[in-house]
Amino acid sequence: MAGTREQAIFEAAIKLGALYHQFVGTPVSPETASSLETAIRESISLQPYVREVRIMIDRSQMEKNVFGYSELKGIMLTADVVTQVGTSCCHARLERRGDYPMMEIIRCYEEPGHPDH
Amino acid sequence: MAGTREQAIFEAAIKLGALYHQFVGTPVSPETASSLETAIRESISLQPYVREVRIMIDRSQMEKNVFGYSELKGIMLTADVVTQVGTSCCHARLERRGDYPMMEIIRCYEEPGHPDH
Amino acid sequence: MAGTREQAIFEAAIKLGALYHQFVGTPVSPETASSLETAIRESISLQPYVREVRIMIDRSQMEKNVFGYSELKGIMLTADVVTQVGTSCCHARLERRGDYPMMEIIRCYEEPGHPDH
Amino acid sequence: MAGTREQAIFEAAIKLGALYHQFVGTPVSPETASSLETAIRESISLQPYVREVRIMIDRSQMEKNVFGYSELKGIMLTADVVTQVGTSCCHARLERRGDYPMMEIIRCYEEPGHPDH
Repeated sequence: MAGTREQAIFEAAIKLGALYHQFVGTPVSPETASSLETAIRESISLQPYVREVRIMIDRSQMEKNVFGYSELKGIMLTADVVTQVGTSCCHARLERRGDYPMMEIIRCYEEPGHPDH
Repeated sequence: MAGTREQAIFEAAIKLGALYHQFVGTPVSPETASSLETAIRESISLQPYVREVRIMIDRSQMEKNVFGYSELKGIMLTADVVTQVGTSCCHARLERRGDYPMMEIIRCYEEPGHPDH
Repeated sequence: MAGTREQAIFEAAIKLGALYHQFVGTPVSPETASSLETAIRESISLQPYVREVRIMIDRSQMEKNVFGYSELKGIMLTADVVTQVGTSCCHARLERRGDYPMMEIIRCYEEPGHPDH
Repeated sequence: MAGTREQAIFEAAIKLGALYHQFVGTPVSPETASSLETAIRESISLQPYVREVRIMIDRSQMEKNVFGYSELKGIMLTADVVTQVGTSCCHARLERRGDYPMMEIIRCYEEPGHPDH
């Protein structure tokens, strides 16, 4: 079956798909972006095999509607997720590429000194 | 058409429906519940006619799954929303009633000294 | 407390907020819009006090991304919800108004011959 | 960088994470489960590199609330997704395992006769 490297990739991708579809549509503004970033990071960090999550919401894309706020769009999000299965790690990223919120594997690596917990 | 009291009711209910379906399913634990409460409160506070939002997630209902976390269920949420349209205010609440996440109008009142902004 | 007319308004607004935040972000194309409309209509029809739901997703707003599909945005949605509490009915609508997905009370009326079930 | 097999794994996992967090919380009953299954399948089939999606919602887990319906929980869902990148295919599954909605790689294989589009 799948090795630990492949499982780390699998787990990282789940997290990107999950956070995207859980939070897109949330009302947001430059003033509230920070609390939303924190909530996304902390919630996704709970999921299996996650070592690190970094979330950045691009304030510059927030165009105010007639009531003065925006909604979280996928292309506003940059999300880095690092998963670890056994000693295999995967760093994956969600990042805007033109008008598409692209999800990609950034790097896979072994970390002997940091066993799975 | 609808008066300001009815519009305040209408607006309060939108917020309860919105927050429920935006955030149910989010991974949560007693350690992360606070950041999720903050994000829900701040995001819903951006929506039109909102004067106040209070969010409480019941930690005692969080049963750990095999990976040690829970997911936000509707019955974990207590949400109080106060809206104001003109001088009419509506206080509505989402709160567990048995196994159902009930949404209800708590009170409508006039607040002459607090004009709509 | 609130009368049946106000409760019908309250219930209609919950449904609009709910469907918006449940389904925004769903991948969609002109070919799949029909099945998404059906799923939204049937799911919201289950909620309390709903008499009728009509959902229309505007295909003309679907701009293909690099992979050939779109995502459901709030401004693509026209949703009509009719609720009934006792003999009081409320018809509310979500509809694009410029760049904002506006939710409004269309009409409230009494329907003596159609008691609450 | 990652090979096509790993990319197929990555893409399959995104879809499982996406569908889970997009649709969990949707009102559902045995009568409406079929339209929800169709909408999930068709929407996820639009995403990149998807060859096949099968969705099954377990009606037997639907306990009626006081208003006679249920909400979609993760453990009600069985989802099979097959992705293809180049000639590499990945079949992944979301399926209940006790009280946890487990996502797993079922099988990776090469399909020379079915090139990527």
